[in-house]
Amino acid sequence: MSVPDLVSRARAGDARAVARLISFVEDESPVLREVMAELSPYAGRAQVVGITGSPGVGKSTSTNALVTELRKAGKRVGVLAVDPSSPFSGGALLGDRVRMQEHALDPDVYIRSMASRGHLGGLAWTTPQALRVLDAAGFDVILVETVGVGQSEVEIAALADTTLVLLAPGMGDGIQAAKAGILEIGDLYVVNKADRDGADQVRRDLRSMLALAQRREGAWKPSIVATVAAKGEGLDEVAAEIERHFAWLTETGELALRRTRRARDEIEAIAVTALRARWGDVHGRSELDDLAAAVVAGESDPYAAADTLLDQL
Amino acid sequence: MSVPDLVSRARAGDARAVARLISFVEDESPVLREVMAELSPYAGRAQVVGITGSPGVGKSTSTNALVTELRKAGKRVGVLAVDPSSPFSGGALLGDRVRMQEHALDPDVYIRSMASRGHLGGLAWTTPQALRVLDAAGFDVILVETVGVGQSEVEIAALADTTLVLLAPGMGDGIQAAKAGILEIGDLYVVNKADRDGADQVRRDLRSMLALAQRREGAWKPSIVATVAAKGEGLDEVAAEIERHFAWLTETGELALRRTRRARDEIEAIAVTALRARWGDVHGRSELDDLAAAVVAGESDPYAAADTLLDQL
Repeated sequence: MSVPDLVSRARAGDARAVARLISFVEDESPVLREVMAELSPYAGRAQVVGITGSPGVGKSTSTNALVTELRKAGKRVGVLAVDPSSPFSGGALLGDRVRMQEHALDPDVYIRSMASRGHLGGLAWTTPQALRVLDAAGFDVILVETVGVGQSEVEIAALADTTLVLLAPGMGDGIQAAKAGILEIGDLYVVNKADRDGADQVRRDLRSMLALAQRREGAWKPSIVATVAAKGEGLDEVAAEIERHFAWLTETGELALRRTRRARDEIEAIAVTALRARWGDVHGRSELDDLAAAVVAGESDPYAAADTLLDQL
Repeated sequence: MSVPDLVSRARAGDARAVARLISFVEDESPVLREVMAELSPYAGRAQVVGITGSPGVGKSTSTNALVTELRKAGKRVGVLAVDPSSPFSGGALLGDRVRMQEHALDPDVYIRSMASRGHLGGLAWTTPQALRVLDAAGFDVILVETVGVGQSEVEIAALADTTLVLLAPGMGDGIQAAKAGILEIGDLYVVNKADRDGADQVRRDLRSMLALAQRREGAWKPSIVATVAAKGEGLDEVAAEIERHFAWLTETGELALRRTRRARDEIEAIAVTALRARWGDVHGRSELDDLAAAVVAGESDPYAAADTLLDQL
């Protein structure tokens, strides 16, 4: 099937066509640039919601419950579970998507786990393109969830219109142990497992830490919502806050700013990746290897070597 | 003072000259490329030891105690405390270096806290250059410690010849909560606060998790050392293991491989940074902004936009 045909089908709601297009992204298919060119007129409508949180806070359950809530409002929902697997192991440890099977037969929900091995730039490379597929395919909301641990919160926040940070009581040192970065990336904080001991404390700690954070005049003030995702409790409020944030983004012009910034990053990542391939970052021994050897031998320095690379462009 | 003069003085043991050269790195001074060219014949001797671990494991105390131990062996020691501060706040929260004042009067110890704001590529950009200064200045061992939290373990490991991962009992969920990545980056695991309850458990957990990790034939097998850094206990063993690892690196040729890989990354980071500056990633509105706006408007796609950027080279 041709790329334009696949794009038409994806836009008409054919899940297999969507899956095929995302596989092109994952496999770095040579047709990817044709796919992106075909999709471009249709992209830019979806709200991208990043969901982040430490293992054990109930990310998967919360995502599932949020899908249910968004479906009640008639929204078409895409879910992208990204596994930013270690650059060292290279292995993808995709999370347990079993609970998501509740939505498996719903044609207006599309769920995809995607590895992001990072050898060509990680999240910066594959995730925006997969988002573009789902966006052009007409999903109203796309939830991006990281599977596994570490390192990617900030990257997810950079890709999303709205970033939801999940917390839960009983996670060891609580908020103190959570990465300091989360206080800067959340548009919405969700304290899950709110029926458990310590949930109020997490909320209080969070509230006082957020109050200390310095914000620009007119900046969005993140709210805190309590949920029990396993029982579907509080998700209506989460959905409402997500909508409120999107309205704010749109009204203030912040949405356009964020999206332009993202497009810049994406263009740059593609250009840099192309250059790296030329320089031999991907394919075996190359000019770059020779330059590196000269630097290690003390015969050159990194700047002079970089000049040599750039002169060859 | 001219750059060659500064380099001569730094090599003769003048701490102020070393400080000046590292400030050039931090400030992205225009003379940086001259500095690197001057240093290149003298680099490549030092052993770079990365020290990583969650907040609270005693990183600063351990670094301090390790410096004392290395000094007993007559080694000149550089310490680089890198703060990979959040790309969002931009603020540098430099750690408490007070305990390090024990070594403040020792001319053979140089300690430097360095911000690494990341807008020009973060650790990949500044840290290798600061390491090059200390290396060329004749320090035998350079300890690189991350200050603050998150995100940078893997980057530090990529910069170091030997990576030391610090753990301690009583850190919430212990090893399970530690990032999965640490099991792949450590050349040496140090269980600090070994006189506390739970230390044996941490060692047992660590041992069994490391036993599960798949390693290539002939790969280095990380060892586990128990310490009480606050009392200086166990540091002799840590120093011995660091030396043993360096001998292994040298004998197997792994050292040359790692250093060539690092030089490649460094050259590439400099080249990419130069290109980004041309594309306007650093300076205001630019061609890249216009391209990004076209992508957001659905008039172009990221590949076509990247082609336009590359065509202009």
